[in-house]
Amino acid sequence: MEATESRLTELIARIEDIDLQAITGARERQDRLTKPRGSLGRLEQIAVQLAGIRGDPLPRITEKVIITMAGDHGVVAEGVSLYPQAVTAQMVHNFLAGGAGVNVLARHVGARVVVADLGVAAQLSGPSTASPSCRFLGKKVRWGTANMRRGPAMSREEALACLQAGVEVLEEAGRGADIVGIGEMGIGNTTSASAICALLTASPVTEVTGRGTGLDDEALRHKVEVIELALAVNRPNPADAIDVLAKVGGCEIGGMAGAMLAAAAHRLPVVLDGFICGAAALIACALAPRLRGYLIASHQSVEVGHSRLLRHLGLTPILKLDLHLGEGTGAALGIFMAEAAARILNEMATFAEAGVSSKEN
Amino acid sequence: MEATESRLTELIARIEDIDLQAITGARERQDRLTKPRGSLGRLEQIAVQLAGIRGDPLPRITEKVIITMAGDHGVVAEGVSLYPQAVTAQMVHNFLAGGAGVNVLARHVGARVVVADLGVAAQLSGPSTASPSCRFLGKKVRWGTANMRRGPAMSREEALACLQAGVEVLEEAGRGADIVGIGEMGIGNTTSASAICALLTASPVTEVTGRGTGLDDEALRHKVEVIELALAVNRPNPADAIDVLAKVGGCEIGGMAGAMLAAAAHRLPVVLDGFICGAAALIACALAPRLRGYLIASHQSVEVGHSRLLRHLGLTPILKLDLHLGEGTGAALGIFMAEAAARILNEMATFAEAGVSSKEN
Repeated sequence: MEATESRLTELIARIEDIDLQAITGARERQDRLTKPRGSLGRLEQIAVQLAGIRGDPLPRITEKVIITMAGDHGVVAEGVSLYPQAVTAQMVHNFLAGGAGVNVLARHVGARVVVADLGVAAQLSGPSTASPSCRFLGKKVRWGTANMRRGPAMSREEALACLQAGVEVLEEAGRGADIVGIGEMGIGNTTSASAICALLTASPVTEVTGRGTGLDDEALRHKVEVIELALAVNRPNPADAIDVLAKVGGCEIGGMAGAMLAAAAHRLPVVLDGFICGAAALIACALAPRLRGYLIASHQSVEVGHSRLLRHLGLTPILKLDLHLGEGTGAALGIFMAEAAARILNEMATFAEAGVSSKEN
Repeated sequence: MEATESRLTELIARIEDIDLQAITGARERQDRLTKPRGSLGRLEQIAVQLAGIRGDPLPRITEKVIITMAGDHGVVAEGVSLYPQAVTAQMVHNFLAGGAGVNVLARHVGARVVVADLGVAAQLSGPSTASPSCRFLGKKVRWGTANMRRGPAMSREEALACLQAGVEVLEEAGRGADIVGIGEMGIGNTTSASAICALLTASPVTEVTGRGTGLDDEALRHKVEVIELALAVNRPNPADAIDVLAKVGGCEIGGMAGAMLAAAAHRLPVVLDGFICGAAALIACALAPRLRGYLIASHQSVEVGHSRLLRHLGLTPILKLDLHLGEGTGAALGIFMAEAAARILNEMATFAEAGVSSKEN
């Protein structure tokens, strides 16, 4: 456990501030391109952020990867989701067959998909995971978490193992990538994400708990109650993000947090998916505040806690499309936007190159 | 003039209601795909709209074209823009050289760009318009409009000729397309668009007039005054959209309106760019209310009148990225979203195909 913790500390120490000189260079070029200053709005800001992350005033986004982490949640025993737990493993097979939402949108944006099993409550390795369209990485830490309503979701040691597994996933899946999108699959994981969000943004549970895949009012009240009981039973320490991850988190949430930290250590832009991915970002940023500069929020989902979560992280979502699927679907769209931003910066002609008159003044 | 008007009337009569049977088919398939119902939000709605427009429950978006219409505005003599009029023609050459924002984003989404000269105040035909990266169509109706502050921007006959030229542009440029994005270039054209928007949405000029390419407060006040004088001098009849187009419109605005009508007559989805394109949509929808079902609003720009304009048309923008460049840049991003929506509908596996359990209930 100490060895894992010290490896994590070393990784976090390797995360640098984003590069201000590259940002200045990107801004100067942006202002010479044949358009009124600022007229490409958010795309201009994203391009400048990418320059800072990559340490390159002309960042190029060519190799794109979406990492989808899967894990199960013991709290489903409390009836917090409309779907049975078996769906997590079934959806992993759907990813591997190329038929899920994330596969379609990843193809549309030209990104690879890598699916990692961090804690699915089913056997997933072997021939059934060999797929031509989607790589599989087996990094199971445990067969689903324990029911956090009754006790800790996992041990501190397992939480650290999830973070470390996420680091390994990023280092295997992200090789050669210019940008990485992070998403997830796990029946019941909005319950865990809401608990994390309540603790790390110091919010009432009711204000950060939503309908997940479609709960009605009564089921939503029950979900809030389950989360409040989980917090009362486990008393996670909000000043200790690893304690929060262990007691009310999930394997795939820890994996996502670890992957984010590793991406930042490699100066890779991280495109966040929705609410659950955002909960992982809360944990990762609590461990490494510098990570924030590497994060791009693809969208604001319909989950009620998401806007508060993003505000807490100081992130402005690019899109607001009423998505709440997860998997990395929003991240795929965000990657498209980031690539658009980088291409604008690289490919547009300057006023001088195009022989276009600048402003009269 | 009567011949042109009757051709337009015939075209408008050919615009059909969108196909409710195809919509029902698309909705039914949407609900069988491996995702919680509605979890892809706006993308699901767009897919269903595309089905209705194309008359196909599984609409495919493969061939994509962005049509950028260019025209000059005599009202620039009043000092309503930061850029000199020459920039319109210079930017047309930038489009043809592939160096403008719309070229970059069109390449990114795999769309062709066609630039049409509807009324640029410069000679644009000849060898200088031969381009490998971007097609040029010469449809000049006049060398820029007259100064609407002093009298009508153009005659009724010329307004009809602009609409007809737009129809021809669509029929030449849109052949084989599955979707068409519409954008514009014209120094001074936010002034014209604000005048149209004030008239056709019955709004005070101050509430629909923005900073264009970057006016300061004083210049903005002057722009409002110029528009108010133009309306007082010309007294356009808000119940007669062609009168509005003639008196305070522009050649490229008429061209865009004509192209929209022709696209709908051919059951092609029309992706609108920003505020000026929206003003053309106001005119076109006044002429043919059925057009509305064929329109997709790509984004809400920073121009103050745009949200009111879109509300008036009953359209919800997909994106809000603080864009205000025009050219079809927002339309390019909107085309990407529409294609994403169509691919989801076509390519995602159903619960039955993927062997994924549906909701427990």
